Amino acid sequence: MVATIPQLLDRKRAGERLTRAELDQLVGGYVRGDVPDYQVAAWLMAVCCRGMARAELADLTDLMARSGQQLDLHGIGRPVVDKHSTGGVGDKLSLIVVPLVAALGVGVAKLSGRGLGFTGGTLDKLESFDGFSVDLTPDQFIQQIGTVGAAIAGQSPDLAPADGKLYALRDVTGTVQSIPLIASSVMSKKLAGGAPSIVLDVKQGRGAFMGDLEDARALAAEMMVIGKAAGRRVTAFVTDMDQPLGRCIGNAIEVREAIEVLRGDAGDPRLIELATRVAAEMLLLGGAATTEAEARAVAASGLRRGIGAEKLGEIVAAQGGDPSPIDEPELLPTAPVIVEVRADRAGFVTDIEPMALALAANRLGAGRARKGDPIDHAVGFEVVRAVGDAVRTGDVLARVHARTSTQAEDAGAAARGAISVGDAESEPRSIVLDRFSTSQ
Amino acid sequence: MVATIPQLLDRKRAGERLTRAELDQLVGGYVRGDVPDYQVAAWLMAVCCRGMARAELADLTDLMARSGQQLDLHGIGRPVVDKHSTGGVGDKLSLIVVPLVAALGVGVAKLSGRGLGFTGGTLDKLESFDGFSVDLTPDQFIQQIGTVGAAIAGQSPDLAPADGKLYALRDVTGTVQSIPLIASSVMSKKLAGGAPSIVLDVKQGRGAFMGDLEDARALAAEMMVIGKAAGRRVTAFVTDMDQPLGRCIGNAIEVREAIEVLRGDAGDPRLIELATRVAAEMLLLGGAATTEAEARAVAASGLRRGIGAEKLGEIVAAQGGDPSPIDEPELLPTAPVIVEVRADRAGFVTDIEPMALALAANRLGAGRARKGDPIDHAVGFEVVRAVGDAVRTGDVLARVHARTSTQAEDAGAAARGAISVGDAESEPRSIVLDRFSTSQ
Repeated sequence: MVATIPQLLDRKRAGERLTRAELDQLVGGYVRGDVPDYQVAAWLMAVCCRGMARAELADLTDLMARSGQQLDLHGIGRPVVDKHSTGGVGDKLSLIVVPLVAALGVGVAKLSGRGLGFTGGTLDKLESFDGFSVDLTPDQFIQQIGTVGAAIAGQSPDLAPADGKLYALRDVTGTVQSIPLIASSVMSKKLAGGAPSIVLDVKQGRGAFMGDLEDARALAAEMMVIGKAAGRRVTAFVTDMDQPLGRCIGNAIEVREAIEVLRGDAGDPRLIELATRVAAEMLLLGGAATTEAEARAVAASGLRRGIGAEKLGEIVAAQGGDPSPIDEPELLPTAPVIVEVRADRAGFVTDIEPMALALAANRLGAGRARKGDPIDHAVGFEVVRAVGDAVRTGDVLARVHARTSTQAEDAGAAARGAISVGDAESEPRSIVLDRFSTSQ
Repeated sequence: MVATIPQLLDRKRAGERLTRAELDQLVGGYVRGDVPDYQVAAWLMAVCCRGMARAELADLTDLMARSGQQLDLHGIGRPVVDKHSTGGVGDKLSLIVVPLVAALGVGVAKLSGRGLGFTGGTLDKLESFDGFSVDLTPDQFIQQIGTVGAAIAGQSPDLAPADGKLYALRDVTGTVQSIPLIASSVMSKKLAGGAPSIVLDVKQGRGAFMGDLEDARALAAEMMVIGKAAGRRVTAFVTDMDQPLGRCIGNAIEVREAIEVLRGDAGDPRLIELATRVAAEMLLLGGAATTEAEARAVAASGLRRGIGAEKLGEIVAAQGGDPSPIDEPELLPTAPVIVEVRADRAGFVTDIEPMALALAANRLGAGRARKGDPIDHAVGFEVVRAVGDAVRTGDVLARVHARTSTQAEDAGAAARGAISVGDAESEPRSIVLDRFSTSQ
């Protein structure tokens, strides 16, 4: 006898596990319009409070992934990997690793969301290139991976539509903060995206969604297990987001920093370290290297040789954008007002608080408050000193790129508050905090 | 700054306590139609999983009590008490204690619900009296307590309408089983009913809603605390419902048993014990006795003298019913088919399983499956042997009162299965298991 929805909810309330068929009755029924939102809201809250068994979570995610279109990347003719970050302040990693890995022979199928909250997302950053289009059809997306080696496109609403519907309900029912619900949301889209190998970057710290290290570890582990259950190879890193990632926060300004790193010119050591680790993992999963040491060496050499910068140009051009800024970064959008923030004492940089900078960047126009709001690609911050650097009174700590001098003043004050100078010489936290892999 | 509803839900999800103003925003908003059911469903599930702080629960219940009409019993000119049972198989206690206590000088304001599930509720049982009306206006209800000493009426939907609305949502979201939600549901109606003193009978055992003794104790304690916070005097008993209460299960058949006890003729010792304890507590709270021993003696003497039977007749007459069955119980509805269930071996009655009898009584027509279904007042069971009684092969254990002989056969088989005869002479469980009082 089939249980009723209230009986299923009653069992989940009591902490029991639901079967795949029962989850389909509930969540599938919701997507089909047969189950009302108040019953799904009760289930979401029960999941928040009671958690999910691992097999139950794998079933849920698989059902969500199958709720709409699923991409088939098997005909591309080369290994394909996907990469996903849970997002953080100054995270321009995709701009670096996607072209780098593609240049080294592994296809990258990168489906991204828009930024919401603080600064823009990868798609917003790429739109700093004049004419760049993030709207590819599935066929265009797949074809470009075959010809260019990588494509970076916006996620179609047909991909895992169950996630979109559940997320909208979570947003209004206080059920966003749940590790299994976050894991299923991310992984349902990755599974529907079709890549056989996935590298996940779970950010942890004051500048990320996950403030707690144990929560971030649990999320990374759950996502890895979901991927494994679905027959994918997954590596999930937990990485530090207690400081901004790299030196720049904004859109075009972050593209400029990424180009610098891709050309092998210079760059923040922690950003280069993470780019190398993530790219190496993508190469390993894509079969372009057989050991981690080899993969890291290949990735580092690729950066030094600047082959990723050229590949980024090809991707931009393939998606209708003007790639000239790759060679001449000054062609990217620039802000009319640049204000320097200087140290008012000598000592060492002891802290750079990421969220204060992100919120100030948002006020400058670099992010959006509501879906569909426009973004100012030119504005943001360059933080020219890192934690641990020695400074003298009057040294430049950061530069504000703003549309008006009033906005620059506000942002400058925020940067002065966010960048602490003290007496103690402190070590920056290591960038990779943990790693979970299906091959372990 | 006022929090948004999703923020309140997020805090409750995390196990935090909501303030009275926040509960009003959520639950009051729901009753006013401003808050959608999916948000309230998420809150109900969070309460099921995280519980409620005692002050939070008191606030919620008070808000629910104030969501509609509230009776004012201050002008009646005598002390008034209310009495409530969480319901169980064969529970005819209100039929006994309401008239008994009224006859002993303490007013009783008894608002009841209809039975749902197994056998009828107090209102259904009283409708065994020809012409009896349970529909009193608040004015009629209050006036009758003044003149007759007691009134027993159906609950108006205007009384604590928040409870009705929340209960309907709990029913379809798997959130019925929650001690704070059950406690607030019962107590919101008791508080709106206006009685300054309340005696609660929380049933525990296989024949009750609460199967677990610790749960029943927790429910009794929570309800007592809610009443205390609202300035009411409350005693909550936890009583045994692992066997039927008394010998009869049905409607008219239970009225007949109650009349027998009220006339001081005879009766099941556990039923008489519980009636005496509950009536004594009502007398104590109503100020008609100063010690429990005195109150018990007054109640027991009242039963022996038969003054409650006379008062029941007055109540029935005041509410439009024909009281003749009080003196001539054979005038109550009777069933055409009576079948005896006999012992098929000698020994001792070791168990009487209440739920099997209740379900069989329901199939006979004594209860209803859906709200508004008609009830057959005549049918039911008389169990003539109690747990611990010695029986010989062929002795009558029970009598089935049925509409047809086919139904009588089915019910007889159920009774044979429910009444166990074995070798061990077992002691019946004591009827009062625990007692919580605001005066302690």
